Amino acid sequence: MPRQRDESGESTHERILRVAAEVFARKGYHGAGVAELGEAAGLKRGALYYHIGSKEDLLYDLSKRHVEEALQRGRVVVDSDLHPVDKLRALAREHVQTIAARRDEVIVVLREMHALTGKRARQLGKLRDEHQNLFARVLEEGVEQGVFRSADHVTVLGVLGILNWSYVWYDAEKGPLTPDQVADRLIDIVIYGELASPRSAGRNGRQLEAPAPVQR
Amino acid sequence: MPRQRDESGESTHERILRVAAEVFARKGYHGAGVAELGEAAGLKRGALYYHIGSKEDLLYDLSKRHVEEALQRGRVVVDSDLHPVDKLRALAREHVQTIAARRDEVIVVLREMHALTGKRARQLGKLRDEHQNLFARVLEEGVEQGVFRSADHVTVLGVLGILNWSYVWYDAEKGPLTPDQVADRLIDIVIYGELASPRSAGRNGRQLEAPAPVQR
Repeated sequence: MPRQRDESGESTHERILRVAAEVFARKGYHGAGVAELGEAAGLKRGALYYHIGSKEDLLYDLSKRHVEEALQRGRVVVDSDLHPVDKLRALAREHVQTIAARRDEVIVVLREMHALTGKRARQLGKLRDEHQNLFARVLEEGVEQGVFRSADHVTVLGVLGILNWSYVWYDAEKGPLTPDQVADRLIDIVIYGELASPRSAGRNGRQLEAPAPVQR
Repeated sequence: MPRQRDESGESTHERILRVAAEVFARKGYHGAGVAELGEAAGLKRGALYYHIGSKEDLLYDLSKRHVEEALQRGRVVVDSDLHPVDKLRALAREHVQTIAARRDEVIVVLREMHALTGKRARQLGKLRDEHQNLFARVLEEGVEQGVFRSADHVTVLGVLGILNWSYVWYDAEKGPLTPDQVADRLIDIVIYGELASPRSAGRNGRQLEAPAPVQR
């Protein structure tokens, strides 16, 4: 497939992916017609199909590119020799930075990925598992070093969830917090918890103690 | 509008909402045609419109009913005289129980609510804010009693996010955890944090201390 580039250096394929993310985010994957996608990208139906194959290819290509880039950036953090707490914070910052900078793509990947079928669904699922594993590895490292309490499945998905959910409520353009500030606040909840003091006593004077660590 | 009930006591309107949740969850709001909705509910196009008005009415009605019910159950918890920590746990359990028991509705409300427009979007947004406020009130109560560190906007959305995200990965039918177990594990992260000990030292021997509380 020819990869012609326009003046900004963006290839037709890249432009289609960018435009598709915007249209899918706004109208939903199922609600976006191929004619509308072509129009938004400035291509006739035939030319669009020449570049993408099918609407599902488009969803797959843009999701795959997005997750692969997140994976690549995350791996740099995980492979560093940072302290587990700092690694978790750095991963969180990477994650919220991505959500802030590429909101359309994130909306499409998080909201529409379930529309993929067959082999494409499996391949993207595998990529997302790899990304999830970055968080698992950092938590496991922390457990091994006696820093974190748990690295089980629910903990990993809880950490991803508290970060991912920001795609719903956080718009970096509106602020006032920067992506790093949002990431820091969220990951501080995960690291330190909400108890004002580990010996916070209830009204009834009882001690509040953390539950025993959960094995993976 | 007549509210005829079938043998199970379900009115036609209730049946339409139930069926619509299933179809919207599977095909997306934009991807679900009115003809398909009518067929799934066993109604002709005219009869369907007689009961619902429009597809957007349907999305609004089922989302509204869902959030109102969650609100009602949550208020019972918030108005109780439980300790703030127990209230937060009880709210979390209610939330994950709802996600587990009514997965289609939750998928539609969380994934498709953005498709509502105008007055309907505002009204549902107001209801969701009220629901969010239940979590804010419990956290504020905890801060006032010196139990919790913060009740600011990001904390409230963080708590909601860690719970909400379970709609993506948790399927109660597959288990192995019960909804209450999932809720407990997630809310324990929020309450106690992941540090094995408040004095967990890094490899470099440094002390890890919780950041200062954030004002709302």
